[in-house]
Formats: sequence, C-alpha cells, structure tokens
Amino acid sequence: MDRRKFIKSAGLVGGAAAATTLAAPAIAQSSKEMVIVSTWPRDFPGLGISAQRLSARIEELTEGRIKTQYFAAGERVGALDVFDEVASGNSQAYIGADYYWTGKHPALAYFTAVPFGMTFGEINAWILYGGGMDLWDKVQDQFGLKGLPAGSTGTQAGGWFNKEINSAEDFKGLKMRIPGLGGQVLSKLGASTVSLPGGQIYENLVSGSIEATEWVGPYNDYFMKFYEAAKYYYTGGMHEPGAQLSLTSNKSWWGTLTDWERTAITAAALEENAGSYYETLALNGEYLKKLVDEQGVEVRSFSDDTWDAFGEAAAAVFEETRAHSPLAAEVDDAVQSKMREIGSAFALFEGQYVNQRNRVLGIG
Amino acid sequence: MDRRKFIKSAGLVGGAAAATTLAAPAIAQSSKEMVIVSTWPRDFPGLGISAQRLSARIEELTEGRIKTQYFAAGERVGALDVFDEVASGNSQAYIGADYYWTGKHPALAYFTAVPFGMTFGEINAWILYGGGMDLWDKVQDQFGLKGLPAGSTGTQAGGWFNKEINSAEDFKGLKMRIPGLGGQVLSKLGASTVSLPGGQIYENLVSGSIEATEWVGPYNDYFMKFYEAAKYYYTGGMHEPGAQLSLTSNKSWWGTLTDWERTAITAAALEENAGSYYETLALNGEYLKKLVDEQGVEVRSFSDDTWDAFGEAAAAVFEETRAHSPLAAEVDDAVQSKMREIGSAFALFEGQYVNQRNRVLGIG
Repeated sequence: MDRRKFIKSAGLVGGAAAATTLAAPAIAQSSKEMVIVSTWPRDFPGLGISAQRLSARIEELTEGRIKTQYFAAGERVGALDVFDEVASGNSQAYIGADYYWTGKHPALAYFTAVPFGMTFGEINAWILYGGGMDLWDKVQDQFGLKGLPAGSTGTQAGGWFNKEINSAEDFKGLKMRIPGLGGQVLSKLGASTVSLPGGQIYENLVSGSIEATEWVGPYNDYFMKFYEAAKYYYTGGMHEPGAQLSLTSNKSWWGTLTDWERTAITAAALEENAGSYYETLALNGEYLKKLVDEQGVEVRSFSDDTWDAFGEAAAAVFEETRAHSPLAAEVDDAVQSKMREIGSAFALFEGQYVNQRNRVLGIG
Repeated sequence: MDRRKFIKSAGLVGGAAAATTLAAPAIAQSSKEMVIVSTWPRDFPGLGISAQRLSARIEELTEGRIKTQYFAAGERVGALDVFDEVASGNSQAYIGADYYWTGKHPALAYFTAVPFGMTFGEINAWILYGGGMDLWDKVQDQFGLKGLPAGSTGTQAGGWFNKEINSAEDFKGLKMRIPGLGGQVLSKLGASTVSLPGGQIYENLVSGSIEATEWVGPYNDYFMKFYEAAKYYYTGGMHEPGAQLSLTSNKSWWGTLTDWERTAITAAALEENAGSYYETLALNGEYLKKLVDEQGVEVRSFSDDTWDAFGEAAAAVFEETRAHSPLAAEVDDAVQSKMREIGSAFALFEGQYVNQRNRVLGIG
C-alpha cells in the first residue's frame, strides 16, 4: 500500500493528495467514489494485504475512474459491522467473509465455507460456472447486496491445541475458538466453542481462557504466535475447506456503474481471488517449515475415527441449517449435489495424480 | 465469440465492422492492434473457446484501446508456427502451450507441464509468487518473447486405450499418441509414441495406426469421440498434471505498451487463467458421467506398480533434459525444489482434507 493511499484512508486528505489529484483533472472530475470497508486489520499478512491490493488494483485498472478508499477493520466501522455499513449504502463495498453473517441468513455460509464442503477449485467452479452465482445473488439480494469472489485462504488448518487429539472424545469439554458451522460441529462433540475476532485470540490462549483455536493456515498463522501456548498443529481441518472471501457491493450503487466499470471491478476481484490462493500456497510450505524448525511446532493429523465423528456431527448441523428456510435448503441441495459431481471428477484426476506423485516422490 | 469479432478475424472487415468503428472515432484512432494467433481450432470446446474469450476480454477491458484480432490454428499460420510468428514480430501474441516448442528450448516444458510436476495451484504459486516468472522470462527472453499464464486444463487424463493397462509391461510396443516429455517417459517403457495435432488423432485411432492416445480430460475429450475406438479411459496421468497455457507477446511490442495497457492485459490473462480451470472442473464431472452412461466408457486407474515404473522412467528423462544447458538445469532445480516445498504443505492441508472428506462422504 502506498503512502498516498494510506493518507487518504486515514482521512488525512491534505496537500499531498490534492497535488496528485490536480495532475489529472479530467479523470478526477469524472471519477466515482468507492469506499471499501474490510473485516481485516490493516497490513495484516495474507488477508489484510490481499484486500488492500484488490482495492488498489480496482483504481489502477479503471485508471482512477473508480476512486477507491480502503478502510481496514475499525478504521471506519468495526470488522463485523461492514455488512450493515454496505447494505445501508453508507459505504459502497466490503471485503470480508460472508459466513460472518450467518445470523442474517444461514445460507451465506455456503459462499465462504462449510464443514465437509468445497475446496478453492470446486467452490469457484460452482459459483462461476455451475450455477452458484445465481443462488448467491438470491441470498444477498434480500439485503441489497451484490458479491463477487475476491480471495481464498485455501484449506484451513485443523487448529492449534495444547494436547494431542487422538479421538473425538478429546473434544469433550475443550474450550476452543472456532466460529460458524465448524464451531457447531465441535459443539456437538462436546467442545465449548467461542467466536473471537483475530486480534483477541492470542491473549485468550495465553491466559488459558481457551485451550485451542483455529485461524487460517501456516502462512497466516505464523504471525499469530499461537505456538507459544499450543504446540500441536493439526493439518487440513473439516471446518473451512476453501474459505472464499468476497468483494460485496451495495446493489443500488453497483447498478449505477457502467458495464465497463463493472467489468473492470470483476476482473480485479477475480484476479485477486486466485492470486491470494496462489500466494497462500506459495508461502504455506515456507512458513510451515519455520513453525517446525524455529518454533518446535508438532504437526499432527486427525485420525480416521475422529473424521468419522466430524462427519456425523456435520450431518446433524446441516439438518438444522436446512430447517431455517426453503432458500437455505435450496442452497444446501445445490452445494451437496454439485460438490459430488465436481468433486468426484476432481478426485479421479487431480486427486489421484497428487496422491500417486506424492507417494512415488515421497512428498507430504 | 460475437459476429463482429468473427468477421474481423476471418479478414472480412467490411461494412458492419466499419460502422461499429465509426461509433467511437476518438478511441478507434488511438487504439493499438494486437493480432493474436492460437494453437487451437476455432470454437474448439474448452481450449479454443477459452482463448477466444481471452482475446475478447482484452479488447473489452481496455475499452478497445487494444484492438485484438484473433486467428485460430490455420487461419493465419499453422498451430505450431505461432511461436515463430510472434518471435518475428509478425503477430503480437500467441495463445498456446509452451511445451510445444521444447525443440527451441527444453526448459519451456516446465512452464506448461512436465511429468510428475506441479498441479494448477502449485504451478501458479511458483510462477506468480515463488520466483518462477523470472525463470520463464529468462528462457523466453532468448526468443524475444514475454509470457503470462492464461489458461489451465487441470490434471489431464491418463489416456484412452483399447485394452486394460495392468502393468508397465502393457506399454511395450503400444502405439500411442502422447507428445513431449510424457511421450519420452512412455518410450522408455517400450511404447512407440507419436505426436499428432488434435485434428488428426481420431482418424489415426479409428484406422488402427495408433492404439491409444491422451488428450485433455472428460470435458475436452468428450467431443473427440475417442471412445468409439478405445473404451478404457484412465484417470489422472503422470504426464500433464496441470497443463498451463500462455498468452505470450512479442517482447519489443510489449515494451511499447503503456503501464496501464500491460496491467489490463495481465488482469485479463490471469482472470482467464483461473476461469478456464474452474470451467473445466465444473464440466468434467458432468461429461465424465455422459461418457460412462451414454457411451459405455470404462474408467480405470493405473496401478501403484505402474506408477512406480512411470517414476523411474521420468527420472531418466529429467536427467536428459538437464544435460541440455545450465539454464535447463537451473529451471529443473527450481521446479523440483519448489514443488516439494509447496506440494508438501498442499498435501498436508488441501490434500488430506480432500482425501478424508471423500472417504467420509463416499465421493470419488
């Protein structure tokens, strides 16, 4: 993020910014304001930097005809208030994870991540080429919103624990930070789950208020220092197989844009959508090595029995979600059926290849 | 592809096209020509349609300031002549697969696909966020070219066979269409491999000149009708784990563009790069079902022993590739090391998740 952008987003539009604007008066006069509020802290490795990059890219790709002003969590409104901020038209768009607002509508979870749900490739195949966008539009339309895929964390880690998890029994009474439907699954196994924003997890883990937490994956988690209090790090968990982030605009504002402006914003969002996934993959290996070699983190995988218990609990959670409304059931039907269609072929081609390559070359 | 675009690319620039140009004279006068030649036949499902979509998107995203003219294989030059066409500056860019030109430099294969190499996520992580682009630039620079990732087929199928392949022995004497390094691997197992362009495979398979072939995957392969002569279809093969396509420009021409024009072309290429992958994933499941249910195709997987034999043969092929030049060895070193770093973390997170989800839900 450059200095000018920082000054603007901090509300300090003074001499320097004005001088920049004067350099291209014709463009500046016809430009449209796009205030973007985000659920991520400023300069937060991974998620925050990706959101800031997208905001800058929209302005770059539109040659400033869309002037973006980016506010990180808490700079204009609180992280979880961005949904209402944009629905009300007070800001033009948010960058965040739609499953934060399952209280508004439980089907929103399916467009970020659900337990035993789709991975990055699968969810984008469904949303962009398999009918998912129509359903997302249908859910968001109730709130006057219009979303686009705009980032991905890849498959999230199972979490950080201060003891080994050898069976589903070990979740009984465990105090763990894990929000959303994943948290509901572990609650059914007897865990005492809480939802805490990123900035409050470390202190609660160190003080013992919680005994375990999940966050994202090696690259993002490295900076959180959870290993100081919980050294067992579990590989791919059931709860967020491909957490998909969104750039969601106020729908009325979106309607005032020209076709070209919508095209440019869409291209920027889809570029960052894949870019943040590639970046995470590129860095996860390096940061996993740092965690193990420098911090003595112990990497573990959940056993087959534990996964079976996750599966049973997840099925019960989905029944509750479906019971909310016909639309929630419609979205669940679509996800379950498309995931099997897309996922079966994925397993036979990319999946079998990766398993065989890794077996033959000893990778993994 | 719309009608105006078709007329233009067929060289029939007449009344209709001229009228369209008149509607926006200021833009038309300052526009730059970008002639794109491609290795794919016109309107070819999957690959051809993706390339045409990218060409149209560049013009759309630049509001016609870059005027693209798209020529499918054979419309301006032959499929495999596009490299020389662009290197010479006669056309501005090609869309194709760089491994077609390993005769120019064997390291080019690594930027499309190599046996036992990277998948879609891994290769993009390496190229865009792991240093791969610098190496690609270094190789292409020798020919005055500058490439961008611009499409992916995902992991390709192991191929179509008129008999079951139960062990590596079954490749002995087998006449198979499989180009590139994958073909060299099977040659080491005793196969008699040939390289044929897409349009000539079917007739050779039906006539018995070849007994087996690989092409892409369920969606792309469906339209080739190979099942009429070879009903055994093998899942993810070792030869093209994530075939990456490129939009490669003449480097001198690329240098004449403004920063904004380069940004817009890059955004369009990266959008299509991921988009073509999502589209393939979205359709592979549907078309695999058609192949099995409607055409009686028998889906098979290569055995562990066969994979072990592929692995030994591939190691020998890489030794030969490395011997070409210090640059070829440098690229191979980078790929082998980055693949292990990126691939290990991928296996532990997305890989383990997918395997467990599919086991629990019975997908695959």
